[in-house]
Amino acid sequence: MELKKLNDLKKLLKKDQRKRLVVAAAQDRHVLEAVRDAEAMKVIQPVLIGDIEKIKLIAGEIDFDLKNALLLNHPDPLEASYVAVELINKGEGDILMKGLVGTAPILKAVLDKEKGLRKKALLSHVSLFESPYYHKLLGVTDVAMNIAPGLNEKKIIVENAVELFNAIGYTLPKVAAVAAVELVNDAMPATTDAALLTLMCKRKQILHCIIDGPLGFDNAISKEAATIKGIDSPVAGDADLLLCHDINAGNILYKSLNFLGGAECAALIMGAKVPFVLTSRADSEKSKLMSIVLASLI
Amino acid sequence: MELKKLNDLKKLLKKDQRKRLVVAAAQDRHVLEAVRDAEAMKVIQPVLIGDIEKIKLIAGEIDFDLKNALLLNHPDPLEASYVAVELINKGEGDILMKGLVGTAPILKAVLDKEKGLRKKALLSHVSLFESPYYHKLLGVTDVAMNIAPGLNEKKIIVENAVELFNAIGYTLPKVAAVAAVELVNDAMPATTDAALLTLMCKRKQILHCIIDGPLGFDNAISKEAATIKGIDSPVAGDADLLLCHDINAGNILYKSLNFLGGAECAALIMGAKVPFVLTSRADSEKSKLMSIVLASLI
Repeated sequence: MELKKLNDLKKLLKKDQRKRLVVAAAQDRHVLEAVRDAEAMKVIQPVLIGDIEKIKLIAGEIDFDLKNALLLNHPDPLEASYVAVELINKGEGDILMKGLVGTAPILKAVLDKEKGLRKKALLSHVSLFESPYYHKLLGVTDVAMNIAPGLNEKKIIVENAVELFNAIGYTLPKVAAVAAVELVNDAMPATTDAALLTLMCKRKQILHCIIDGPLGFDNAISKEAATIKGIDSPVAGDADLLLCHDINAGNILYKSLNFLGGAECAALIMGAKVPFVLTSRADSEKSKLMSIVLASLI
Repeated sequence: MELKKLNDLKKLLKKDQRKRLVVAAAQDRHVLEAVRDAEAMKVIQPVLIGDIEKIKLIAGEIDFDLKNALLLNHPDPLEASYVAVELINKGEGDILMKGLVGTAPILKAVLDKEKGLRKKALLSHVSLFESPYYHKLLGVTDVAMNIAPGLNEKKIIVENAVELFNAIGYTLPKVAAVAAVELVNDAMPATTDAALLTLMCKRKQILHCIIDGPLGFDNAISKEAATIKGIDSPVAGDADLLLCHDINAGNILYKSLNFLGGAECAALIMGAKVPFVLTSRADSEKSKLMSIVLASLI
């Protein structure tokens, strides 16, 4: 199964299965707008932790009726983050969302060895793009969390993303391990890591996906480009997910698709006990909402 | 002065100033089509080195009248490359173009310490994009030649690109040294190199441009994104050139703009005694032609 548009995610929603969305430091207008919209779609039940006074003020301004929301007053952002994490650990929350708190403090709570939400050895960012120039949704990882992952870290980054794809109905997502060239070159670790991941997948060291690499970005997403290069691959030209070598490659791709590619995306942090929504002010309304919808499907 | 479209390059052409375009191993249909078009525009005079019999055969098929072309018969591609380089060193050629010869052999001739065309300490690739989502042409470097440049290599990569921009009328091109984040972070060499290049430009160690970095790709090309982050910069939101950290970042950006960005580009290898046109089969006709036009302006 393949999804062509971000809106196709909505079709996967089940009726009357609201997930409990726990927002840490919820006194943020942009975040509350997205929560309001997701609540109106009956996707989530909001659990808003933060400065209740400010939350109510903003809610009034944006016509967000809080009658279905649970509110907990913890004005300090770090404390709000720890309370959010604690709630989830007690089984009282299904999705974590970042509000008006820095990335560093909320990650402190999430990664806390005793009280946190650790599951995998690392968290990673997965984005799902709808591009006017590609025939289906295109995943990209990791564009934000891991600076220079080694082979084993890349394995977990792939697994985190594959968990997401499996949850939205892809039984065997096609993963392209992308490098600047499609030949193995000892001087380019992106190519050797890509080749090793491909073999690890063949040996079932990485499950529930098909990996091929090294592939150039062009070969990964264009059958024509792959054919010109004589590449025979089950992934080439039809990738569901691109694994980027490091944060420099991932981030520049993410931003070029968003800013110079006419694309929109939903994005999650994966690898914790629950999906983690971390949107930024620059994200479009649709992007924020679809990130919550995506989280609710995991 | 700023150019908005690749076609604006044509306006910079001077009348009756044909450059001598030396093609090594010219028996390539795609290359000869671009040469034919550039010749018809009176931009260049072709010097075609290679297998004359095959060149004439292809020329017949694509309606390329060879009456203005100089033909030299050297069927061996490596030999043709060396002859091309020799001609240029004798002052009988202004632009080098790669035909049906591998990148490795032609670079062998270009980089030959005695007979080659070395000028700067390294060659680098500069591409000039026309994107439907940006308000002017956008340069990107280096996406193809240098795998993991250090600080001094990045300095030369910038200088090579700045030479190109200066030649097409930009007296002070705005250069964004792009990283995943806009803060200096010792764990991310892309950010420290970017900061150092910025200061080197302030100290006039790099001339004829304005460098700012580290900038995220978003801050570099979007004023709005820069404002949200509170970045005060003469380059942010209005970059003419993006310096990418390494080949993984550069190549994925180059290909995403070409394949998923609706963009077109002209591209050159800079740093040798003459501009070097190296197109690939996958490039569009316009891209190949505009690369020759660009080379003729250097």
